[in-house]
Amino acid sequence: MTDKLINQMHFLAEADKLKTILRQSYITDKTRQENSAEHSWHFALTAITLFEYCSISGVTLNRVVEMAVIHDLVEIYAGDTYAYDDKGNETKDEREQAAADKLFGLLPSEQAKQFRSLWEEFDCMETPDAIYANAVDRFQSHHNIHLSGGITWKNNSATSDRIYKRMAVVKTALPELWEYVEGTINEGLEKGYIGRTAE
Amino acid sequence: MTDKLINQMHFLAEADKLKTILRQSYITDKTRQENSAEHSWHFALTAITLFEYCSISGVTLNRVVEMAVIHDLVEIYAGDTYAYDDKGNETKDEREQAAADKLFGLLPSEQAKQFRSLWEEFDCMETPDAIYANAVDRFQSHHNIHLSGGITWKNNSATSDRIYKRMAVVKTALPELWEYVEGTINEGLEKGYIGRTAE
Repeated sequence: MTDKLINQMHFLAEADKLKTILRQSYITDKTRQENSAEHSWHFALTAITLFEYCSISGVTLNRVVEMAVIHDLVEIYAGDTYAYDDKGNETKDEREQAAADKLFGLLPSEQAKQFRSLWEEFDCMETPDAIYANAVDRFQSHHNIHLSGGITWKNNSATSDRIYKRMAVVKTALPELWEYVEGTINEGLEKGYIGRTAE
Repeated sequence: MTDKLINQMHFLAEADKLKTILRQSYITDKTRQENSAEHSWHFALTAITLFEYCSISGVTLNRVVEMAVIHDLVEIYAGDTYAYDDKGNETKDEREQAAADKLFGLLPSEQAKQFRSLWEEFDCMETPDAIYANAVDRFQSHHNIHLSGGITWKNNSATSDRIYKRMAVVKTALPELWEYVEGTINEGLEKGYIGRTAE
């Protein structure tokens, strides 16, 4: 085997560690937290299943699915940073850039560039593909949190103002799902596992 | 929301259960068995990463990635059937067809047809996309079993003749990886966690 192939195999072996990165969200039977590998899979499946509702023009589904597959890889070294963890989010960029250097650095340079640029495109949320991808990523989490009884919101003192802000991209890219999202937020407020404001 | 969308959301909620379907393989830190959702993700990542080594003409990577995402969904109702479980494999087709009826039946008919036909194409292993997809699926498992110290082979009394038979598609579709596959089988034989024949 060439050194190039050996390094790609090493990358795939390192990637296995994404299965140990736990998110704040739970799987729907509530027995345990979801990990970032299985979340990435569910994100990809959701992107495929709901694509007909995407209201953004010029989205290439295949690129969105690839984004889903690679978007959380940097968490292997940087860890998962919960969306509303203000302290964690202050250092997130720095940690994730260092993680990207280390992880994508295992790949041949052209492939490293390709993976990294897809991840950065996702993160910037500016292109049509990245807007739809972020909408699906956030919707999958939201749906799972709702289905697992809002435990993540309760554990993290989530508030509706922050959830609305984070979910705005779903309203933009998947407007037909908005009624459901609003309904779940209202239910969370009524049941008391979502607060009204941060203070 | 339309009934159609409600049903698609129900499908995505059911799909979450793939995260609870345990395979015989382990994650590489050996702490627990791998589940079929995270395996599907790793399969998709492997298909993308190793595509340059695919020796089969006419493979469309995007379709292979979609196959990876949906190929194990029927296990939600049918369970995972270990490759060398002879008894389980006798009833596998029947169980999986019934599971496909139930699971894909949640989707609108056109989408159900699309998902089901992609899964059946994967399963038949005849088209270029399905040949590459099966090679990657089997390689990902093999690589993980090797990286986790062969515990799966040991637990299931695996033998080299069956492993060679199962891995033949890797030799066909990813010939540059064959040297590695052979090396891992030889190592398993030397260390005693792979037997020579079934009897």
